[in-house]
Amino acid sequence: MAVNFPSIDPAALHPVAGVTLGWAEANIRKPNRKDVLVIRVDEGASVAGVFTQNRFCAAPVIVCREHLAAVGKGGKGIRALVVNTGNANAGTGEPGMVIARETCAELARLAGLDAQQILPFSTGVILEPLPIDRLKAGLPAALANQENAHWFDAAQAIMTTDTLPKAASRQVTIDGHVVTLSGISKGAGMIKPNMATMLGFLAFDAAVAQPVLDQLVKHVADRSFNCITIDGDTSTNDSFILIASGKSSLPAITSTDSPAYAALRDAVTDVAQELAQLIVRDGEGATKFMTVTVEGGKDAAECRQIAYAIGHSPLVKTAFYASDPNLGRILAAIGYAGVTDLDVGKIDLYLDDVLVAKAGGRNPAYKEEDGQRVMKKSEILIRVVLGRGNATATVWTCDLSHDYVSINADYRS
Amino acid sequence: MAVNFPSIDPAALHPVAGVTLGWAEANIRKPNRKDVLVIRVDEGASVAGVFTQNRFCAAPVIVCREHLAAVGKGGKGIRALVVNTGNANAGTGEPGMVIARETCAELARLAGLDAQQILPFSTGVILEPLPIDRLKAGLPAALANQENAHWFDAAQAIMTTDTLPKAASRQVTIDGHVVTLSGISKGAGMIKPNMATMLGFLAFDAAVAQPVLDQLVKHVADRSFNCITIDGDTSTNDSFILIASGKSSLPAITSTDSPAYAALRDAVTDVAQELAQLIVRDGEGATKFMTVTVEGGKDAAECRQIAYAIGHSPLVKTAFYASDPNLGRILAAIGYAGVTDLDVGKIDLYLDDVLVAKAGGRNPAYKEEDGQRVMKKSEILIRVVLGRGNATATVWTCDLSHDYVSINADYRS
Repeated sequence: MAVNFPSIDPAALHPVAGVTLGWAEANIRKPNRKDVLVIRVDEGASVAGVFTQNRFCAAPVIVCREHLAAVGKGGKGIRALVVNTGNANAGTGEPGMVIARETCAELARLAGLDAQQILPFSTGVILEPLPIDRLKAGLPAALANQENAHWFDAAQAIMTTDTLPKAASRQVTIDGHVVTLSGISKGAGMIKPNMATMLGFLAFDAAVAQPVLDQLVKHVADRSFNCITIDGDTSTNDSFILIASGKSSLPAITSTDSPAYAALRDAVTDVAQELAQLIVRDGEGATKFMTVTVEGGKDAAECRQIAYAIGHSPLVKTAFYASDPNLGRILAAIGYAGVTDLDVGKIDLYLDDVLVAKAGGRNPAYKEEDGQRVMKKSEILIRVVLGRGNATATVWTCDLSHDYVSINADYRS
Repeated sequence: MAVNFPSIDPAALHPVAGVTLGWAEANIRKPNRKDVLVIRVDEGASVAGVFTQNRFCAAPVIVCREHLAAVGKGGKGIRALVVNTGNANAGTGEPGMVIARETCAELARLAGLDAQQILPFSTGVILEPLPIDRLKAGLPAALANQENAHWFDAAQAIMTTDTLPKAASRQVTIDGHVVTLSGISKGAGMIKPNMATMLGFLAFDAAVAQPVLDQLVKHVADRSFNCITIDGDTSTNDSFILIASGKSSLPAITSTDSPAYAALRDAVTDVAQELAQLIVRDGEGATKFMTVTVEGGKDAAECRQIAYAIGHSPLVKTAFYASDPNLGRILAAIGYAGVTDLDVGKIDLYLDDVLVAKAGGRNPAYKEEDGQRVMKKSEILIRVVLGRGNATATVWTCDLSHDYVSINADYRS
């Protein structure tokens, strides 16, 4: 069902020096599937993350924030990440916190680290106790098969309702030094920025000072994982982590002003956008991939607000599913997005290259067969021009199909 | 498919003195269906309305606002309403405005009124030109069959994707005088407050001064049509109109302070709530009717925000469709509703009488079979207690089924 999902060759996912990955089949929720991932990071690496804004954030998210804050206060660096699928350890109150801490303590014991050097992640069902004994029992296996070539297996190990593992990789040359970037992501429903039931882990071998990496992770998230929506549901567990292992020969990046920073930033953004778009392409029940671009706004915030209103509208999404150019639904979504001083008489709407609405009304030259032709494609650009400024924003989304309902009506069964 | 939709007896819809209704089959979009309604109001009546907040509001909404404003400035009273289905006359720019005005002018000519005494309404497809000639050609028939007993036919004449006509009626005694109230509504998708592709017309025979009626219509809308959601899409055409014909023997209500006002207000709210809930019961593809009540908030606004986040969540709605007590999805929706200082550790969640989550975590005494038992019902109360104040809010909504997708993927076909 995934939309133009590229075939991923495991051999094309470059190892990142200083980063190894191993998994286990721990039977957290279902037997015979990889459901625990441990990523180990050599000493000296920098790690930064951004997390869900959901007030009901999961216990592991709280622990991640604590452990990263401890690094910021001069604590020892992060040396391992542990991810389980099958159970989100969210809505689990204080017992959930105990379990998240116990996971870190056990991995620390096995790996000879401090618990604070571990970041825990969980994804799956909310409101159910995480079977900590199974998770702990899986850790030795995940430590035993650590390899830096295991990116594809790692991508498999973090899947939930994903139908395909998601990974991307690049090598770029910065100031004459080769920098290698590899990442994995998961998520297929409950996807909306800030963030979604999505996990993203992206490692590269450049050295980046902690404060710079903290800025970089926000910059990249705002241009990748925070620009996607499937159903508008922001999850309790979303996390996006950057790992800078520092093993490349490129001198350490200590400022956001350097050309090397700009080159690295763009490369990381590029990989993260690919990882984020893979989530949409594999969106639950998705049959179309839509890019919603809003231009000519007063500021990026209002452009995003309108792009998200379009991207979330069940009526817009079902019309795209049906390839029905019922495009008034897009105008309605623009109108209710909450930009209260919007002059709709200035708005143009394009579907790919087809000018559908002009100055707030139907373009007299618009022919339904032109709209129909675009709607039948599997990748579609919805472009809105507001005519009131120079700001712009883009959101990636998918359609709403029968299969979305089936998948989410059956998820736990 | 409708959920516990009451059987409506046309004979139980009381005529309202001073108000007549007539329809036509004008072939606006499809043949052989009532698609034009004219409601005539005797001289001396007061009329007030509230309309969509969508910036892309339809041409007839703009004209309604103008004509009601003219009454407020001392113009002649409103004497007729004209409604067409099949085409929303929205996203139609200046040509749409011309058509809305021409509709009023033609009805005024036929009925011996000024155009400003007419309120026009349209509902149906957006972004397509309204076939004004067909609409005009239908007006004589709609004027010819005016009867004050035609409420049921009127309810049929305003249906679009509705599967059942929606009407409600009451007689109440206020200060010893019988007051009769009857109303109709339509809408089944694109339903969210402020408002939805919904039309509501509610007439009664009490006399109410214009400024009091203007307040009453807002009070009632905020407790009825502004408390429902099906898919979160706010339409371009929503309108809710109160007609006070003044034919009852009850002395005119000229202040909101009188006991008579309070009695009338409650009766009108009651009928409007029934009309609003009928829309949800007939929601596109609905199989469950859910009441979402949020209590213990700091203010009603935050309670509404959380109630709507739950009511809009596709994941919550699909879980209810499946009768799957995957209730962590409700917690997630509470968490992302945007109440940024929410202490989730104080939150309790009930499903009917079952305490599912307590103090932000799973209630230790909660058993899945108890949740399952409630989820299987067709009417369910989702009750959230925030534990931070005394405010409360309620929203009515329905589940998200395969049929919602089918209906909206096929609507124009």
